[in-house]
Amino acid sequence: MDLMIPLQTASESKTPLYEQIYRYLKEEIRSKALLAGSRLPSTRTLAEHLKVSRSTTQMAYDQLLSEGYIEARPYRGYFVLDIKGMLELKRETPAEFISMEEETKRDCVVDFSPRGIDLESFPYGVWRKITKKILVDDKKELFLSGNHQGEQTLREAIGSYLHMARGVQVHPEQIVLGAGNEYLLLLLWQILGGRPVIGMENPTYRQAYRVFFALGCQVKPIAMDAKGIRVDLLEKEEVDVAYVMPSHQYPTGVVMPVGRRMELLRWAGEREGRYIIEDDYDSEFRYRGKPIPALQGSDQKERVIYIGTFSRSIAPAIRISYMVLPQPLLQRYREKYAFYASTVSRIDQNILYEFLVSGAYERHLNKMRATYKAKHDLLLAKLRPLEVDFRILGEHAGVHILLRSRREREEISEEELVERAAAAGVRVYGLSSFFIHARHNFYPPTIVLGYANLSEEEIAEGVKRLKEAYMKEKKE
Amino acid sequence: MDLMIPLQTASESKTPLYEQIYRYLKEEIRSKALLAGSRLPSTRTLAEHLKVSRSTTQMAYDQLLSEGYIEARPYRGYFVLDIKGMLELKRETPAEFISMEEETKRDCVVDFSPRGIDLESFPYGVWRKITKKILVDDKKELFLSGNHQGEQTLREAIGSYLHMARGVQVHPEQIVLGAGNEYLLLLLWQILGGRPVIGMENPTYRQAYRVFFALGCQVKPIAMDAKGIRVDLLEKEEVDVAYVMPSHQYPTGVVMPVGRRMELLRWAGEREGRYIIEDDYDSEFRYRGKPIPALQGSDQKERVIYIGTFSRSIAPAIRISYMVLPQPLLQRYREKYAFYASTVSRIDQNILYEFLVSGAYERHLNKMRATYKAKHDLLLAKLRPLEVDFRILGEHAGVHILLRSRREREEISEEELVERAAAAGVRVYGLSSFFIHARHNFYPPTIVLGYANLSEEEIAEGVKRLKEAYMKEKKE
Repeated sequence: MDLMIPLQTASESKTPLYEQIYRYLKEEIRSKALLAGSRLPSTRTLAEHLKVSRSTTQMAYDQLLSEGYIEARPYRGYFVLDIKGMLELKRETPAEFISMEEETKRDCVVDFSPRGIDLESFPYGVWRKITKKILVDDKKELFLSGNHQGEQTLREAIGSYLHMARGVQVHPEQIVLGAGNEYLLLLLWQILGGRPVIGMENPTYRQAYRVFFALGCQVKPIAMDAKGIRVDLLEKEEVDVAYVMPSHQYPTGVVMPVGRRMELLRWAGEREGRYIIEDDYDSEFRYRGKPIPALQGSDQKERVIYIGTFSRSIAPAIRISYMVLPQPLLQRYREKYAFYASTVSRIDQNILYEFLVSGAYERHLNKMRATYKAKHDLLLAKLRPLEVDFRILGEHAGVHILLRSRREREEISEEELVERAAAAGVRVYGLSSFFIHARHNFYPPTIVLGYANLSEEEIAEGVKRLKEAYMKEKKE
Repeated sequence: MDLMIPLQTASESKTPLYEQIYRYLKEEIRSKALLAGSRLPSTRTLAEHLKVSRSTTQMAYDQLLSEGYIEARPYRGYFVLDIKGMLELKRETPAEFISMEEETKRDCVVDFSPRGIDLESFPYGVWRKITKKILVDDKKELFLSGNHQGEQTLREAIGSYLHMARGVQVHPEQIVLGAGNEYLLLLLWQILGGRPVIGMENPTYRQAYRVFFALGCQVKPIAMDAKGIRVDLLEKEEVDVAYVMPSHQYPTGVVMPVGRRMELLRWAGEREGRYIIEDDYDSEFRYRGKPIPALQGSDQKERVIYIGTFSRSIAPAIRISYMVLPQPLLQRYREKYAFYASTVSRIDQNILYEFLVSGAYERHLNKMRATYKAKHDLLLAKLRPLEVDFRILGEHAGVHILLRSRREREEISEEELVERAAAAGVRVYGLSSFFIHARHNFYPPTIVLGYANLSEEEIAEGVKRLKEAYMKEKKE
């Protein structure tokens, strides 16, 4: 670690060099620029660096030691001590610098967040073992920058999985990995080019909407019916690119039947430049009936961009998503955008590869399915008494369900449902919050309940509180 | 792993169910959709999945076993065998699907690439040890999505390092992490907004130019003199945002003196919306004189965006870069773009944090400095005989130098220098390839030599071959 200490020579200042160093470091420690626990450079390193004698730096350190700013640890060097409690010159934190995490904190006993995942089931042991295997020093090439689309082997493994599990027609060369769906959308937007009009199911996954909005795209919210996005409206609104979740729409849980799928593909095929982005975000979890194949598998005209992620099936912190580009876009990507280096660490790519091909991913998915199925069944069982007042929707897949009031918006509003729950210590999510614009007044009040990261006890407790909150309301 | 096997019932087809399954799987294996070594689902899982009896799936598997497509491993399940050498239906690979890595392959004995790093010095042991420590199952929160700017602790550690080592004025809340500089530029471009005109030093780091170009920015190449980018031309070309490398310009190695720095800062401060992007890509390595502080440290008007990376100081595969946003841009980021989740794996962020605060990074940098210094000194010593014909430039820092011909372009062209080297099995890089447009005719022929990833033997061998190639030319 270098130290930019502005030293003044004897002709410039009467303060001895050692004292200038000591004062500088003391100020750094008091202002928390140097944090407790950080290691100072050795006296020799610092001396060489500042072109002063070693005794000078030693004197400065001795002074700091004697004043209790630092400590010397045998064989390890000098470390900054915690000066909490000491009279300190606390560095000002301007209001704009308040950490953002504060904002999202909120008191609640049970949070039915639809975006959680179960982390109790994460295979820490296997992950650790694979990591250890990957990080051996005869694999030096892993530390160089790799293939821009992602490791060839990993793309092969993902391609084979997508083909088998989701019926996706894919050659590994069509796959591009990225650090999350948002990054892939940033890249895809460049590949699509020409400022396309985006059509999105409404309600939808708002994070994707935010990306398009941030990029200055024209985004048209497209209404859905019981079969999914209305293709007639795509036509009417002059949409170029439709963003859809046909296998399990978020958040409504609607599964697009084959008729609507064909209609959608026909729409895309009818005009040059039309594309469908298929976000297959949680297809791994389905509790009833046959698995729903990906729309991409029925695409005969190279119009579907398939996007998937390991955020839900493994963990959000992993940051590995992938997209399958149809031929024309792949070509454009290769010509103009393939210079972008992969945003996924090559080490992580290799860990994931081992995780996939060793069978650990399959075992993990089976475990997760069983875990989520148990939570899902418990939640539905506990909710039964509420079915007098609510219909349960979207309950055959994923890790969230919808609770739709049987009463009209005039009798009880969605906001009221959310607030009553909050007053009872339960966080639930109004369906309105998933809409792009406020065009949702024709829906009866509906709340979204996610259960992935809740224990069975929490689910039971949460529903118990919900019942009290909503029944109480009824009695009034 | 699910299997989308399209089964036909007895009324639809005379082929028994087990045979349909067997045929499907066989075709998958032959076409390499199912790769050698992959594990099939258990007979029970598959049976449940397809809603057929377990004996049906068992019969299908038995057939595959007897035909040698799969093998059964005790306690582990069924695995696909390698069918290489067997008569197989090879899946067509269309020309567009040829892997891109093929293109960049090129025969040479010694490659003086300026983009390499020394991987012999990577601290595999320490990295493994830290990783093991991080991946313990009581740290579950690490697997949830984290702070959008990056972990608070890591930003504190980076901030403290930047302050001490580079004189950067930074509060941790100003730091945004990203998976590589390119991603940060994509994000920064959104934050800057309003389609600014970008001015870049010419020659420059072409990868950054490509990002701006891909985003449709107007990029103006700005000529340099001995002190760096010409500020008068920034004014004349009506540039809004200047992209510069003041501490060690890439590839010229020019260090911007304090006078030019002040002139540049003054230019930025003179009009609303002007900014300076300071890419401090390899400031860690400097062999002579005092360290050059970052330009950002002298910025009084919140005009400098500081960008740094661990790609060079640790490894490119790590994919962790950071930017320090000045107040106005931080505010805009918070308001409009903070919804983007971090593109860096939270696990990796925590590994890096431990690496920084344990002192391992400091030790690693010291080791790298010594290693690079030794290579640098050797290269210069070996090049001495060539100094009759060439001047050596940019040799006090970084991991590359420039070799500038003392003769005119008319006598020997840069292309010829590159080609003669190639004929001798040595890859060198013409300075022309770093220019944005072909406005470089006034430079004498110059080649760039990087040495980071070469061993001392390779450096010696490479220079020996270069000498022969260039001396031969002289004799002619």
